[in-house]
Formats: sequence, C-alpha cells, structure tokens
Amino acid sequence: MAGLLHRRLRLRTALRWLSPLSTASPPAVVRTLPPGFSSSLLQTPRPGSCGVRCRELHAGGERPTPSPAATPERRPFSRVTPEDLAFFSKIIPGRTITDPDILEASNVDWLKSVRGFSEVLLRPQTTEEVSQILGYCNSRNLAVSPQGGNTGLVGGSVPVYDEIILSTALMNNVLNFDSVSGILSCQAGCVLESLSLYLEDRDYIMPLDLGAKGSCQIGGNVATNAGGLRLLRYGSLRGTVLGLEVVLADGKVLDCLATLRKDNTGYDLKQLFIGSEGTLGVITAVTILCPRKPKAVNVAFLGCESFEQLLQTFQLCRGMLGEILSAFEFLDRECMRLLNTHLKLANPITDCPFYIVIETSGSNPTHDEEKLHQFLEEAMTSSQVIDGTVATEEAKIKALWSLRERVTEALTHDGFTYKYDISLPVERIYQLVTDMREHLGDRAKSVVGYGHVGDGNLHLNITSPTKDPDLLASIEPFVYEWTARFQGSISAEHGLGLKKRNYIYYSKASLAVALMGNIKTMLDPKGILNPYKTLPDDLQ
Amino acid sequence: MAGLLHRRLRLRTALRWLSPLSTASPPAVVRTLPPGFSSSLLQTPRPGSCGVRCRELHAGGERPTPSPAATPERRPFSRVTPEDLAFFSKIIPGRTITDPDILEASNVDWLKSVRGFSEVLLRPQTTEEVSQILGYCNSRNLAVSPQGGNTGLVGGSVPVYDEIILSTALMNNVLNFDSVSGILSCQAGCVLESLSLYLEDRDYIMPLDLGAKGSCQIGGNVATNAGGLRLLRYGSLRGTVLGLEVVLADGKVLDCLATLRKDNTGYDLKQLFIGSEGTLGVITAVTILCPRKPKAVNVAFLGCESFEQLLQTFQLCRGMLGEILSAFEFLDRECMRLLNTHLKLANPITDCPFYIVIETSGSNPTHDEEKLHQFLEEAMTSSQVIDGTVATEEAKIKALWSLRERVTEALTHDGFTYKYDISLPVERIYQLVTDMREHLGDRAKSVVGYGHVGDGNLHLNITSPTKDPDLLASIEPFVYEWTARFQGSISAEHGLGLKKRNYIYYSKASLAVALMGNIKTMLDPKGILNPYKTLPDDLQ
Repeated sequence: MAGLLHRRLRLRTALRWLSPLSTASPPAVVRTLPPGFSSSLLQTPRPGSCGVRCRELHAGGERPTPSPAATPERRPFSRVTPEDLAFFSKIIPGRTITDPDILEASNVDWLKSVRGFSEVLLRPQTTEEVSQILGYCNSRNLAVSPQGGNTGLVGGSVPVYDEIILSTALMNNVLNFDSVSGILSCQAGCVLESLSLYLEDRDYIMPLDLGAKGSCQIGGNVATNAGGLRLLRYGSLRGTVLGLEVVLADGKVLDCLATLRKDNTGYDLKQLFIGSEGTLGVITAVTILCPRKPKAVNVAFLGCESFEQLLQTFQLCRGMLGEILSAFEFLDRECMRLLNTHLKLANPITDCPFYIVIETSGSNPTHDEEKLHQFLEEAMTSSQVIDGTVATEEAKIKALWSLRERVTEALTHDGFTYKYDISLPVERIYQLVTDMREHLGDRAKSVVGYGHVGDGNLHLNITSPTKDPDLLASIEPFVYEWTARFQGSISAEHGLGLKKRNYIYYSKASLAVALMGNIKTMLDPKGILNPYKTLPDDLQ
Repeated sequence: MAGLLHRRLRLRTALRWLSPLSTASPPAVVRTLPPGFSSSLLQTPRPGSCGVRCRELHAGGERPTPSPAATPERRPFSRVTPEDLAFFSKIIPGRTITDPDILEASNVDWLKSVRGFSEVLLRPQTTEEVSQILGYCNSRNLAVSPQGGNTGLVGGSVPVYDEIILSTALMNNVLNFDSVSGILSCQAGCVLESLSLYLEDRDYIMPLDLGAKGSCQIGGNVATNAGGLRLLRYGSLRGTVLGLEVVLADGKVLDCLATLRKDNTGYDLKQLFIGSEGTLGVITAVTILCPRKPKAVNVAFLGCESFEQLLQTFQLCRGMLGEILSAFEFLDRECMRLLNTHLKLANPITDCPFYIVIETSGSNPTHDEEKLHQFLEEAMTSSQVIDGTVATEEAKIKALWSLRERVTEALTHDGFTYKYDISLPVERIYQLVTDMREHLGDRAKSVVGYGHVGDGNLHLNITSPTKDPDLLASIEPFVYEWTARFQGSISAEHGLGLKKRNYIYYSKASLAVALMGNIKTMLDPKGILNPYKTLPDDLQ
C-alpha cells in the first residue's frame, strides 16, 4: 500500500536524478572503475536500504571471503563492438541507444542503490526483434539485462557490469480483450496503470495493483511474480496469468500464450518464467484473467489492544466479510508515532498498540455496508476491537489508506532505515518485531512493523540516526535466521535480484537451489540472461 | 458436476469388478500376453471412451505406423527379481504386495479402459520409505507407476507393463491445520472427501471438489492439476497449493513444503510437479490454502433461447452476482432429452435449447438471496432468460444439480459414447457441438454438449448404437483439429496420461513439447517415473 508514495517519489526523483531520496540517505561514492568502463559511478554502499556493498577491487594478494551481499566478479562475456552496434542498428534502426544521458536512467535502479555500466540500450517493438537480438547475443556471448519499468527493489532490473539493456518499453500494445471471459492479452511492455485504465472503461480491473503502477510493466510484474494490494482477494499471478510468450536465451520464441482457464496438456512451462526475474527468458506477451470492477468499496480503520486480538479480528473478518474482503493490513503504535511526528498525520481513533485497515470490494453497496457494520458490531461487542472508524466516501477512504501507505515515507524522516520484506506464518509475523526490539535494545532508534496480515507479509523496518555497520551486524543474519527458524521467506514479494541472491539458502533447501541451477543451465547454457541475479554465486 | 454419479458408479463397480459399466460397454478382450506377464487381460479396445487401442503384437516383418493412441513398446527397464522383493519387504514389511487378487484393482483404471501387468504393489507410509524405494528402483532401473486413488480418466494412474505400483494410500495423515490462515498441510494419500470433512468441522472447505472425491487423493489431485467444481470461484491448484514435498526419481527428497502465501525466493519448483502426472517426481505431502465454509448456498436452473443469450446471461451474472457466484454450468436440449428418456428426470421449466445451472455461495444468506433475485429479475426482464426456478433448500438444490450431474449417466444408456473434454475461448464452446453435429449428420445417434461455461470447458459427447470405427474416424482428428484452430486445449482438466499423450501437439507448440522432454530428462534421466505417460512417444 505504499503506492502513491512510491509514484510520488519516483516523479520527484526523476526531476532530481541521482540526488538522495531523503536527507538520511548517504551520498553517492565515486570509486576507481574496473578497466573498460566509462561510467563514473559504482554502487553506493547503502547496505541499510539495499544490503549491497561494493565489490572490493584488489590489486593482488590474498582475497578475503566475499560478503554474501558483495557484487560478484564480472564473468567472461564478450564486450560490445562497433560491429555488434551495427547489427543492432540494422534490426532496430533508431532504437539502438548509446547516448550516455539516455542510458543513465536505465543503468541505475529506482532506489539508486545499484548501478551498471551498460553502453547499449535496445528498444525492440516486436517479439521477432527480441528474438533476433537474443539469438545474436547468444551466438556472440553478449550478456543481456532485460528491463521493464525498472521499479524493482532488489537490483534485478539494471545491469551489474556492461550487460546490454533490453527494454520492453516500446512493446506496449493491447493484443486482445475478451469482454465475456475477462481475459486480456497484451505485450509485455504495457504499463500496469495503462492496462487498469483500459480495463476500467470495460468494467473490469487488473487482478494486481502495485504502488509502482504508473511505471511498472506487466512483463516485469510477471517476471518478478509481483504481489501487491489485491493478492488477498484475487490470488497470485500464478493463478491469474493464463499464458505467456517468452523469447529464450537462444532467440527461440516459446509460445505459451494460451487464453484458456483450463489446460492440462503437459507441464505448465509458463510457471518457470513467472518470478524468474528475467534469468530464464524474456517475457514478450502475457494473457491474464481480469476480475469485474467492484461496484462498492469501503474502508475501516480499527484499533486493537494486542496482536492476538488483531488475529482474532482477522478470523472474524474472514468469516463475516468473506467474499467481499479485499485487504487486511496492519501497522503498529510505533508506525503511528512516526506518522504523527514526521508527517503530522493525526490518529483518527484512540491510541492503540495495533491498527488495522480493512477494505471491502463488492457488487452491492447496500449489502457490503451491512456486512461491514455487522462485523464491526460483533468485533466491538466481543472487545476484539477497541475503537474504529469507517469510510465509504472516496476522500475519507484515501485519508484512512494514507495512514498505512505513508509509513514508508515517515520512516525516511526518522533516520537511516534498514528494510526487510518477510513472509511468515500469519501468527508469527509480529513476534519477529518484538524479538528484534528486544534483541537490539536501545541500539536502534525505532523498530516498527506493518504489512499485509492477510498475506502473512511483514514489513520490518529499523531506523538509526545514521548508517550504522554495528547495528547492521546485529540485525543480520539475526533477521534471516529468525525467519528461517519459522519456515518463513526472506523475500515475500520483492524477489532476490542482485541484492538477496546469496540469502536464498535461508528460505530454500540446497537441493531446490541446485535444481534451479539445473533449470538455468538447461534454458540458458551460456548464462547470458540477467547474469549475477536470483541464483547464488556458488551456482553461477 | 458428475460427482455423485462418479462415486455411485465407483461403489457399484467395486462390487462387480471388471463387469462392464453399462450394457453399451464392449466386453473385455483377452489377448496373447507378451513373455513375462502373468496377468490375463490386455487393454480392451474402447476407443470411444478412452481413445486407446491395444498395442499390436507382431511376430516379425514390417511394422505399420502405429496409431497415435496405440500403446508404445515396452522400454528396456529391469524386471523385478526375488532379490528386489526381498529388499522392498525389508523396507516396508507387510506392505509389499504380490497377491494377484489385490494387485488387480491397482492394475486396471476406473474406466476399465486400460490395464497393466504389475506384479508388485508397494504401500509406503512415510516420505523416507518412498525415498528409499525410489533410490533403489532408480539404481536398479526399475520403472515405477505412482498411484493415488486411481480415479484418473486418461490411463495415467495404472502401469502399462510391469511397472512397480507405488501407492500413496497409506500416507493419509493431516500434518497441520492453521485455523487463522486456513492453510492445511497433509500427506499426499489423504482422500479429498476426508480432508473436506476434516475442514468442515473447522469451518473451512477444500478449494477443490471433484466427482471422485470419495476415492481420489490430494496428491493425485495435485499431480493431475485437477479442476473440478470450485475452480470458477477459488481458482486453480496453481494458486491454492502453497507447498509440496516431492521425492525425485533418484530418491532425493525435495522439500518445497512452504506454508506461505508469498515467497519470491527463486524459481517456484513446485509448479513443475503440479499437473506432471507423476512423471517428474512422487508428491508425498501438500500444503494448500483453504477458503472459509460459505454460510449460504443457492441454485438457479434457467432456460435460454440461444447460446448467445446464455453468454449474455453469464456476463450479467458475473456483474450482478460477482463475488458470490460459485458455478455457471450448462447443458443443451439434447442432454435434457436424454435425461427425460433414459432417467425419467422431468424438466422443471419450459423446454429450451439451453439450460443453465447457477450456484451462489456466500457469507450472508439474506444478501445472497437478494442478489440472486435481482439478477433473475434483470435476466428475465431483458429476455436473456425465458424461464427458471430457484432452490435454497438442500433437497431441491440436489434435484436441480442432478440435471447437470446425471447427463453422463444418461449418456451411458444412449449407446456407445465418444467423450471429449475440451477447453476453448468461452464464446466458442458451443460452436464445436454445432459444427460436429453438422459434420457427422445422421451418422451419430446423439451429439450433446454440456460443461463448465465459467471455465470455458466443454464436455462434448457423441453416441452411437454400437462401437463404430467409421464414426470414430469421422470424429477424430476433426475434433482435435477444430480445437487447435481456435487455440483450445484437447484436455481441459483430465491430463494426457497414456491415452492422449500423442495428441499434445494439437495444443502445444513443438518447442514447448521439446522443453518438456528436457525437463523430464533433467529430473528423471532414466525415465523410470510413470513411463509412457504425458510426453509423446517421439520424445520418450
């Protein structure tokens, strides 16, 4: 629910390119470049926001054991030659970009936490062009970094070294929409918000909604298996994506672009590419099942005395709101304190240890309001909820949502923020916050928890007046070990990308990771697709 | 919705084992057996119901091109020796079955359309036992046929030759249920109905429901990516299955048994095994997200003048019933004629070319009834629906559902039945019935269509007084070519198994099929797991 903020920040930073996002962000650090690079900036060491430290550049001697977050060595891919550029310009004239100013935006991620040094940005318009490009790159052993809206949070969407950037931005056509079945087919580069607007005119909605919707592209959403705000109601992309067209590393086009709800003819290959972060193929088109646009939306903002009561409220809510429940989010008292202190947002209800945002979406406004009021009466009568307020008008709905959405923004004003996106069995999600608070004592400024209760997804954030390596050493690997102990996931929705690739073993068994390596080798034997991402260094 | 019938028939046939299901079924044909087999029956030639013809046994000379439906040659797997049996008996004492009478039920499929000649049935209770068995079989090059409830319809769950049958029937423990999140963990051999009963006591339901629920096992459901009756509402198993434990061909245990709604750490390996029909690994445990039990269920039975009106009604229904719609099924006038003629079931409404069964499931009985009545008023006012009746009591609900559920039974009384399970873009599903009727003229006795409109899934059935090879030659490949022309699937929910493996190219591109072969080779290099199934012969 950090949606509007995310978009707002994106717009702001587009105007002040490469300036820090907040006063708490450390300045960019200019380092000596490896030979062959013309760009002027290496990754800035911001382990707090991204966990990635710069690759150490050694002149010789004994090499220390690299940190799991360190950038790996460049692999022996070919370097782009004038002949390569001539070839690309022939395939996609006018869309082979080498202007460093234009390349800048594609070399740096949205968080400004990692950057690459690519000297070529390719903007194909058709699947055939992508096919020709990848076929050529594979034969030439040229590495490729596929890029959608470049809104990822784990350094997965920008090159690490001089990989060719393959942008899907110009592949932005809707191919078909079936208004009976609600099945949409489109090219991978369609921006999520554009698709939402297209569908709203037709009385449908996209089954996913993200903060970054103004920039992110559906191909990137699928490649990262984006979660977002509607997962509780409409499920994950693994269920709603019905078909994919993918160009493989060797340029072959894999057509799995079915428009069917059911198809049990062989293995479901498209699933391999959902969430593979561009490491197994480049998604060029998507078919997706879209739900009808709800006729009514309501929001309730409630307070609970304890997390146990919050969980009881969740259970009651699922029973009484059932099919109309579309979000069940929470924030803790510390979040509210930051909202009050830094953003001057007032708490609309009594001070409580926990706050809940409940959203309903349904087809009958009267019924939905009745259900919501019956639920609230029951929740308050049984003392699960101690105070609350309800909104049915759009302005008040937005105001209540902003209390959940703007926590991220409030955190940036609190200091240097260490951010974790953890998936846990729902009854455990707040225990991590409590344990972390106890574990860190007064070493942290604030330890706050908020997130998607409905999805078992906790956003744990820890602030410090300034970047603090000692504090970081207290947080990691504690947070990962804690998560692993309760069979959680160290990346609920953001993926692994460059930043978290080596932490995969906290959430996946060695055999599973080894199999992933086999799949990568099978589909991309030269490893040209999005190298250094998703898979841990010991497999690469 | 052939649920009750399916269960009823299964009980009946359990008492009269190997007797024909109906008077129209052809008798079993006893053939000369290949050397080494002790069983007395080969597959009966029932191309109408299963599309599989017996493997021709040649003494020598030139071999004719085999039919796509013919049983492939036995591959050079080892044969089970007394030493092998001693090994198995040591691992699972008392659960290594060689009694031919007990083996009989596991060698023949539910439809009695295919049979194998296995002499060993293994009944492990634990994942560790499955691991030891597969590790041993792989090292000995012994083929294995994994078996759940043996309720599959494409010959995927029984051996073709002498494969060892590995039954999950004794792996039937619930491992955990989290009443907050609704996440169930259980062993693969849990019977679907047992799980449903277990959950009902806890105010939850399984996200899938099948006709065969009294016998089918959750592991088999996942291995075949079963669709069933609740897909329209709760989505496919690809979204609701959160984790799997799988034993690979070499005996290694792949633990992907997550209990998380969100986990984006690497490739989602469990998806490979969902719908792979036991050819890539043996599923030993499952975690699945379960919905709350609805508090109200209503059923409406409606009549339409045309399929266009039926589709308009579907659209109206999705808009007005929205979140409470749980089924939208149809049958045509010919189906109703067969129900009247053979089962003496009366049509509760005016005679119409098309009938719809709509089910709602929701959390508030008053609201659901109101929504349903508002929808019906609108549908009848706008003349999309010309007559209808509604049921809210259980007995009347069952009576209305039986009109949809018992079509299969009525067909068995009409003659020899050629059955097809086709997935198509929803606006096309009835056109196939119309075109088939025109194409066959008076060569067929009846050509009927029914199925899941909501899922775009047509059950096309063609009857003939007796088995009729000429009629079959008119139906196939016409039906497959027609389906392929409109990008449909030749197997919407039943899988490919033995019977349809060679028809895969009608629904999947060659590159996709080749990749499936690569995945099979990667995970099961000796090909011991469920050989002759799912993948076409040219890949095996």
